[in-house]
Amino acid sequence: MTDSIKVFAPATVANVVCGFDTLGFAVSQPGDEVILRRSSKPGVTINKITGDQGKLSKDPIKNTAGYALHQLLSKLNPRFGFEMELHKKMPFGSGLGSSAASAVAAVYAASKLLDHPLDKEELLPFTLLSEEMASGSPHADNVAPSLYGGFVLIRSCDPVDVIQLSYPSPLFCTIVHPQIEISTRNAREILRNQVELKEAAVQWANVGGLVAGLLQKDYDLIGRSMVDNIIEPVRSLLIPGFDEVKKSALDNGAIGAGISGSGPSIFALSKDDSSANKIGKAMLDEFTKQDIMGTIFVSQINPDGPIVLD
Amino acid sequence: MTDSIKVFAPATVANVVCGFDTLGFAVSQPGDEVILRRSSKPGVTINKITGDQGKLSKDPIKNTAGYALHQLLSKLNPRFGFEMELHKKMPFGSGLGSSAASAVAAVYAASKLLDHPLDKEELLPFTLLSEEMASGSPHADNVAPSLYGGFVLIRSCDPVDVIQLSYPSPLFCTIVHPQIEISTRNAREILRNQVELKEAAVQWANVGGLVAGLLQKDYDLIGRSMVDNIIEPVRSLLIPGFDEVKKSALDNGAIGAGISGSGPSIFALSKDDSSANKIGKAMLDEFTKQDIMGTIFVSQINPDGPIVLD
Repeated sequence: MTDSIKVFAPATVANVVCGFDTLGFAVSQPGDEVILRRSSKPGVTINKITGDQGKLSKDPIKNTAGYALHQLLSKLNPRFGFEMELHKKMPFGSGLGSSAASAVAAVYAASKLLDHPLDKEELLPFTLLSEEMASGSPHADNVAPSLYGGFVLIRSCDPVDVIQLSYPSPLFCTIVHPQIEISTRNAREILRNQVELKEAAVQWANVGGLVAGLLQKDYDLIGRSMVDNIIEPVRSLLIPGFDEVKKSALDNGAIGAGISGSGPSIFALSKDDSSANKIGKAMLDEFTKQDIMGTIFVSQINPDGPIVLD
Repeated sequence: MTDSIKVFAPATVANVVCGFDTLGFAVSQPGDEVILRRSSKPGVTINKITGDQGKLSKDPIKNTAGYALHQLLSKLNPRFGFEMELHKKMPFGSGLGSSAASAVAAVYAASKLLDHPLDKEELLPFTLLSEEMASGSPHADNVAPSLYGGFVLIRSCDPVDVIQLSYPSPLFCTIVHPQIEISTRNAREILRNQVELKEAAVQWANVGGLVAGLLQKDYDLIGRSMVDNIIEPVRSLLIPGFDEVKKSALDNGAIGAGISGSGPSIFALSKDDSSANKIGKAMLDEFTKQDIMGTIFVSQINPDGPIVLD
C-alpha cells in the first residue's frame, strides 16, 4: 500500500452535438493531475493548486476535487485524511469538463489509497455530488466519460445509469479552445425551456443514429447523426465565428463537429492523425479571422479514463 | 419469370415506447397478404379485398397498397399493369401498421414481377408515398420495419435514412388489440406541439439506451429504456385500462411494454414463448375488466420483412 499517488484524468466532450445531457466521451489530452497523500490529519487539505491562474479556492469544499474527496471521506470515514495537490492542465470554463476531470482524478487517486479500493461505479456518485456543487445539477456527461473513458451514454441520472458504448478505432478528436469565456450556468440559462415536439423527435432520431453509428463502427452514420437543431443554434450565438469554424472542420475531413459541452471549445472527430491536425489548423485560422486566439488539442479518444502516472 | 405471386408482409410496432416517429420493429404475426398478377391492362386494378369489413376502396389510388403500386408504375412505366387481390389479415386502426403492411406486400410483390427487380431501398419511397397519402405525412416507422424486418431506426425521413438494428434473440412480442378504434390522425392531433427540453432530453437518453440495448443484446437495458413521459401519458388516455394492462404485462415477465404506434394495441416484449403467452392472457384479462374484448397475437420478431408465400 502506497501512501501517495499521482493520477491523470482526461478532459471530456459532453453532448457530442445531438446528445444534450446524455452523451459524452473522453479525450487523451488535455486532462488534470492530482497528487494525493494519505495524511494523519482528518479531512481534505489542499496544499497546492497550479494552472488555475489563482481562480480556485484551497477550501476543499469550494473546489470540485476537494468536494468529491470530502464526500468520499464523509461516507467511508477512514482513520486518515488526504492531502492534495491539484494541477490544472486545461483551460477553465472551456467546455472540456475541467471541474469533472479534477474530481475524477481526485476520487480515483483516493480509491487507490484506500484499504479497500472502490470500483468506478462506486466512485461515480462522489463526482456527481461535486458536479452538483459546481453547476447546480448532478450532470454525469463529463464525470462519467472522464471516469470510464471512451463514449458513454447517461441514460438516467436518478438513479444513475451509465452505458459504455464501443466506438470505431482509430478515432481522433480535435479541440480548439478559443480564448473567450462562457459560464456553464449562463450557457444553460439561455436555452429555451420548451422545444417543438417535431424538433425533439428529430433530435432523438439523431441520438439513436449516433449510438448506432458508434456501436456499428459506422463513421458515416456517426457524422450524419451529429446534427443539433435545438441547442447548437442557441449556444453557438455565444461563440463568434462558430459557423465558419465548424464548416472549416467539415471541409477539412471531419466526420462531424460541434460545441464541446456548453462551449466555447469546438471539437471535431476524424479518422486519422493527419486530418485531425489539419482540422485544428483550419479551425484556429477561422478564429484568428475573428481576432480570437486559441489553443489546439489533438488526441485519440481516451479508452481508459484516469491513469496512475507514478 | 412468373406472372403471379402471393406475398405476406408483417405488422409492425412503431415508436417502441420512447422512439416516437423514429423506431419500429416487425412481428411475425399478424400481417397482410397480396396476390399480384401482371396484366396487359395498364395501371392498377384491384379485383378483390377481403378482411376489410367493406371499409377499403377498390379505387387503387384510395388504398395504400394500390397507391404504392400506382406510384411504382408511374415511375417505372413498364409495358404492363397489375391486378391485385388484397387480403387484410389484421384489424384496422389497430396501431399495427396495417396500411403499411399492405403497401409493403404490394410493392414487394411487384418487384418480383418486374423484368428488373428493385431492391428494398428502391421500394421504400413508394411505400412512404402511400403512408403520406393515408396519414398526411411520410412516416417510415411502419413501412420501413415491415419492409426490412427486425428493428429499424428512422434517422431521417428527408432524405430517407433507415438504419437496421440487430437485436437479442430470442425476442418475443405479445400484442393485444382491444376492440376500440383510434384514428392515427386523432392520436397525433391530441399531442402537444411543445415539450419541455428537460423531458425531451430524458426521452433521447432513453432512445439512446434502447438502441444500445438492442445492439448490445442487453434485455435489461432494453427494458429500462422503454420509458416515455411525453407521448404515452397523452395517448394512453384514449385506451381504457392502459395502466393496468401495461402493469399486468410487466408483472408477468415482460421486458417492457407500451402502446403500439398510435394505439389502441398494446405490445410487450419478452424472452420466451411461455412468458409471451402468459403476458397476452394477463393483458387481455385486464381489458376484460374494462368490458373490452380483444385479440392476442404472439410471435417472434420478424427478421426478414415480406416473404413470398407461393
